[in-house]
Amino acid sequence: EGVKRIAVLPGDGIGPEITREAVRVLELIAEVRGHRFDLVYGKIGGIAVDEEGTPLPDETVRLCRESDAVLLGAVGGPKWDKGPTHLRPETGLLGIRKAIGLYANLRPITVFPSLIHASTLKPDVLAGVDILILRELTGGLYFGQPRGRRQTADGVEVVDTLQYSEHEIRRILRLGFELARARRKRLVSVDKANVLESSRLWREIAEEVARDYPDVELVHMLVDNAAMQLVRNPRQFDVLVTENMFGDILSDEAAMITGSIGMLPSASLGSEGPGLYEPIHGSAPDIAGQNVANPLATILSVALMLRHSLGMEDEARAVEAAVRAVLDAGHRTRDLAGPGEPALTTAEMGDKVRAAL
Amino acid sequence: EGVKRIAVLPGDGIGPEITREAVRVLELIAEVRGHRFDLVYGKIGGIAVDEEGTPLPDETVRLCRESDAVLLGAVGGPKWDKGPTHLRPETGLLGIRKAIGLYANLRPITVFPSLIHASTLKPDVLAGVDILILRELTGGLYFGQPRGRRQTADGVEVVDTLQYSEHEIRRILRLGFELARARRKRLVSVDKANVLESSRLWREIAEEVARDYPDVELVHMLVDNAAMQLVRNPRQFDVLVTENMFGDILSDEAAMITGSIGMLPSASLGSEGPGLYEPIHGSAPDIAGQNVANPLATILSVALMLRHSLGMEDEARAVEAAVRAVLDAGHRTRDLAGPGEPALTTAEMGDKVRAAL
Ligand SMILES: CC(C)[C@H](C(=O)O)[C@@H](O)C(=O)O
Ligand SMILES: CC(C)[C@H](C(=O)O)[C@@H](O)C(=O)O
Repeated sequence: EGVKRIAVLPGDGIGPEITREAVRVLELIAEVRGHRFDLVYGKIGGIAVDEEGTPLPDETVRLCRESDAVLLGAVGGPKWDKGPTHLRPETGLLGIRKAIGLYANLRPITVFPSLIHASTLKPDVLAGVDILILRELTGGLYFGQPRGRRQTADGVEVVDTLQYSEHEIRRILRLGFELARARRKRLVSVDKANVLESSRLWREIAEEVARDYPDVELVHMLVDNAAMQLVRNPRQFDVLVTENMFGDILSDEAAMITGSIGMLPSASLGSEGPGLYEPIHGSAPDIAGQNVANPLATILSVALMLRHSLGMEDEARAVEAAVRAVLDAGHRTRDLAGPGEPALTTAEMGDKVRAAL
Repeated sequence: EGVKRIAVLPGDGIGPEITREAVRVLELIAEVRGHRFDLVYGKIGGIAVDEEGTPLPDETVRLCRESDAVLLGAVGGPKWDKGPTHLRPETGLLGIRKAIGLYANLRPITVFPSLIHASTLKPDVLAGVDILILRELTGGLYFGQPRGRRQTADGVEVVDTLQYSEHEIRRILRLGFELARARRKRLVSVDKANVLESSRLWREIAEEVARDYPDVELVHMLVDNAAMQLVRNPRQFDVLVTENMFGDILSDEAAMITGSIGMLPSASLGSEGPGLYEPIHGSAPDIAGQNVANPLATILSVALMLRHSLGMEDEARAVEAAVRAVLDAGHRTRDLAGPGEPALTTAEMGDKVRAAL
């Protein structure tokens, strides 16, 4: 087995400190299991704007393209918020998704029994929740053209374009069916077919692809209803597949429902090339550099990387088990600790996970 | 004082039975307070498709235009779901919004203390929640052009267009500030300014309008974050203003959080012409005609009508107080009753409210 090359993009805010702990987990995995990981660092987001004049330097794109997987911390912060679009940290994130063709964003939404009380939802509603949200990542309103302002006789008019090709819709739905087949065999496809033309095509293609997966139950759900059902009864969901913007909104809603937003990882996959792994939380500039951030979502993103990009399912499970064990033992970072409960630092939490490994 | 003309559009599913109870409340108000309401019935939605061949007959549009206010039950059902767009019940609803220029959808999200336990959220998170969601109703992805499919060399491509004029954005934001000024003076403007051009214009105009309302605090929030914050801490919101599709999703999420989706009314207002009042729940075809539906959201929609279109604030409060009294006395329709608890029929619930009036 050869060396695996991993691009590490720590980014902004708490990005560097949480990425550091995740990298140490990777290094320990390499040592214990006899793998070789070649970790190469790159810049993205605000720090890249400051140091290279662009949120996504060409060199970072090249680095990612030449890697087997990408680990990303987080991007963004108030410092760069007022800049023009091409100098915003998010533009770097959107850019790398597009540049390496990451069309599928996987967000497993699970509830950790020992954290269930942190949610604003009642524990009996949450127990056993295990949802995989599959968000289309390169189409829809995010990249559609035309977009922008136009001066008319009656003032400024602005448009964004929600655009999909048949091909883009089919490949994400097919992946949805594949993932559902490997799980509880229920696929909820979320759209707004009573209003959007794109949703009507989406629904037709879903019906068509469904014929190849007679063992998977397909349910169509309108996005407004889905936003309700996630609150009413999140346990009804197995795999939820949807377009880019709906996925952005629903996956964050679903994440918050678990009460453990600092715990949730994500994987972004393309049809070829590396996958990108990142926590779903943001760069939390208010606590950056204080060694109090929760590194577990980033560590769990490493587990997803081991599983989806490096073909190391055993290692992935070992990381996930270690995180669970640490939580079950009562260890908490500040975001998870109850009032008066002692809290570990970012580095201490990383140490605990490595000890459990 | 003259006669007020009210268009009544019962629609489909449970629409007719819940509308009947609301109309009886209106009739009682007229009798007790010495008003004259001229109620004229019209067709919309599936029933209009069946009987007139269109979900929005010209006569219904004319009737609404000539009225002081419109009371709508609900539209839609599986019977009409597979039809072409121009024969779908929702097309009637979208059509009447457009035809009478209803640009502002107001959805008050309140928690009834006696129903707080019906929510999947913990009672201490919900206590005191009082949000007014203000959704832009005639722009965005709902009516923007172009929309539809195009055949390309690589297969079908589909677009929808998210479109706003400066004027549309300004008038909804201005209303948001006005409403916030009359309440707790906090306006959360929800957008996706890190991705959408339309959101960037929205944010600029919000800043501009804010200068006329120095007494109102303006907070910008990204839509994915808003979807989280509604779950995390709904009490932080006073007035939430947003574009059409975001409002569709967030208002349903917020409604479900209260646990009382059968209780929530809405008002849709234009700059002139009648307002339209309807419950936010759907036509519930599965229980239609069984006299078990909850009429309270429709009755509370009548309260909004009295307030916003008929200038009868006292009467509006009397209706709201009557509904609260009925709930506090323990009366429940089937959707609200706990397991084993007795449930009133639709008509009995209407009687209770009228008795309390
Ligand atoms: C930062 C932003 C552009 C991004 C998105 O909307 O995709 C983020 O919200 C996410 O979900 O990864
Ligand atoms: C029925 C549908 C077209 C409508 C909408 O999306 O506006 C409904 O969901 C609503 O919120 O009133």
